[in-house]
Amino acid sequence: MDNAKRTRFEAAWARVRGELIEYFTSKGMPTDAIECYTKNLDYNVPGGKLNRGVAVVDTVEILKGAALDDDEYYKAAILGWSVELLQAFFLVTDDIMDTTITRRGQPCWYRVPGVGMNAINDAITLEATIYYLLKKHFRGTPYYVDLLELFQETAYRTEMGQLVDLITAPEDKVDLSKFSLDKYRLIVTYKTAYYSFYLPVALAMHMSGVPTSYTLEGKTIEPYKVALSILLPLGEYFQIQDDFLDFSAPPEVLGKVGTDIVNNKCSWCVNTALTLATPEQRTVLDENYGRKDAAAEVRVKAVFEAVGLREQYAKYEAEVHGRLVEMIGAIPDGPEHGILKREIFTSFLEKIYKRTM
Amino acid sequence: MDNAKRTRFEAAWARVRGELIEYFTSKGMPTDAIECYTKNLDYNVPGGKLNRGVAVVDTVEILKGAALDDDEYYKAAILGWSVELLQAFFLVTDDIMDTTITRRGQPCWYRVPGVGMNAINDAITLEATIYYLLKKHFRGTPYYVDLLELFQETAYRTEMGQLVDLITAPEDKVDLSKFSLDKYRLIVTYKTAYYSFYLPVALAMHMSGVPTSYTLEGKTIEPYKVALSILLPLGEYFQIQDDFLDFSAPPEVLGKVGTDIVNNKCSWCVNTALTLATPEQRTVLDENYGRKDAAAEVRVKAVFEAVGLREQYAKYEAEVHGRLVEMIGAIPDGPEHGILKREIFTSFLEKIYKRTM
Repeated sequence: MDNAKRTRFEAAWARVRGELIEYFTSKGMPTDAIECYTKNLDYNVPGGKLNRGVAVVDTVEILKGAALDDDEYYKAAILGWSVELLQAFFLVTDDIMDTTITRRGQPCWYRVPGVGMNAINDAITLEATIYYLLKKHFRGTPYYVDLLELFQETAYRTEMGQLVDLITAPEDKVDLSKFSLDKYRLIVTYKTAYYSFYLPVALAMHMSGVPTSYTLEGKTIEPYKVALSILLPLGEYFQIQDDFLDFSAPPEVLGKVGTDIVNNKCSWCVNTALTLATPEQRTVLDENYGRKDAAAEVRVKAVFEAVGLREQYAKYEAEVHGRLVEMIGAIPDGPEHGILKREIFTSFLEKIYKRTM
Repeated sequence: MDNAKRTRFEAAWARVRGELIEYFTSKGMPTDAIECYTKNLDYNVPGGKLNRGVAVVDTVEILKGAALDDDEYYKAAILGWSVELLQAFFLVTDDIMDTTITRRGQPCWYRVPGVGMNAINDAITLEATIYYLLKKHFRGTPYYVDLLELFQETAYRTEMGQLVDLITAPEDKVDLSKFSLDKYRLIVTYKTAYYSFYLPVALAMHMSGVPTSYTLEGKTIEPYKVALSILLPLGEYFQIQDDFLDFSAPPEVLGKVGTDIVNNKCSWCVNTALTLATPEQRTVLDENYGRKDAAAEVRVKAVFEAVGLREQYAKYEAEVHGRLVEMIGAIPDGPEHGILKREIFTSFLEKIYKRTM
């Protein structure tokens, strides 16, 4: 993402943040509580990659087919920051459940001195903040209830995915017989693809007045269903790539050291390796996956190489890219306002395809 | 609450529970995840006093002025169980934050073997379940969006109250200089009164078609504002009474041993005692409040007696009861359908006034 784009989006956060603190203050909250809430916002919301939030703004602009004026931009940015708030809510709670140590280069929120388990209330307060923003800025719009339902359903999906992830791959108890590519797909779709890919686009579509169905070139289009049918596999592709990079990318390119193997992650790599492994290789995986032990990790990586994971990934990437290009190409496109545009999806796909970090 | 009333409300839960599990299953969730979700529901939702949930049904019946038919009952019961789901969400997370050991006579959910911090995801899933139920059963109604907003705003208020409570009275760090009756009132109103008193009544009012404003006997009534103005002090009265009983009621009458003093609770008793204590008594409180030590507790109780807490409470109870009776009496009442009725509030007040357990 270019710097100007990021800066403009961050400037909108400064305004949103001010509104949130003003509301908290107006409700008679004591000074120390306002300080806690402010720290919660500052520590957990703005420091991420912001791809999800900016995707809302980008999509609104694509659907308009022209630059957004300041009011349009701010409304789209509020939805974008609401996606970032939802993500912050998930990350703060996930980090407690996964006993993660650091996030975005700093200690996880629950590990900050004085926070501890109060982080749970902080996280659910971030979630509640979303609905305050939606009510304040979108109450009068015809799509207000659609926004509420989208956030609620997306949260539910994400929590369903998190449940399956938690019981399939507990950090402290390795049992590869629980893993499968089917379960992997369910986890990834529910836990990541809905909120990271479908949610930002669907929010932007509602804000842009895209109806539930319309007719174009003699075809009846249900644009939200079309978007879902493309964005869920796109999100799956993104996560598979993420998993593959965790295993294969040089740390100096990726910017971090991969930890999926030692952390018993239900990753695409191990699930694919399990479908290809000989009984001997399977034993190596059973005995070495998910151990906090560098030698064990090396043995797992050797199996990943031996089963040909790199070729499998290349094959998968070519296949899914071709399939997505075809699905996107099948969308009737045109200059009309308020309809789905291919560019929404191609812009995502271009950012992801063959990325190395 | 009589047994028949409880049984009927519990029968509605059996149906709601079935719908929830069916939905979870229909979304392709694996068997072990469905089992976890079922245990989460069974352990955390139905075992409470059910006062809040049944209050929705009672209020809908009062507003109708006649018995509810089966469909009306089930709709009201869904709202009632949604309040119980919201409470379960709060209790599961609060117990983690407060490191509570038991709840409703059994280990807190996070202490059940195999659950641990996954309880956080279970709790937020209980919250998400509310919005699934509202969408399924109320989407077509004119008050659907009011229900969504009520739950969202109530959750936000409760979380704001929990934040103030957490930072004012951390279990491990006693500092009575942080306490005050003003903070106490804010905590109680936000953390308890909104969701326990206003939410059930306001839900029932929406379901019964009570409008935002109407004219009766030449007066313009804003019934939700009137309900709030009565139910917040009523909720405060309920909690003050709860706090007073924790200190004063014989355990054989109360059914449990009071623990507010040893657990450093920001209770009405200590806050009132602080306003009345001599410097010497204040020192006793500072040195003995919130210690896990029976002798210290005895010393705190002696100060509570010496400052005349029992008389203070009797005075408060007479005053608040008189004030509430007056407020309720000022509501223009009548046989018309769809308007506020005094009986909603008197039925609450009668249950609370001079209760001993």
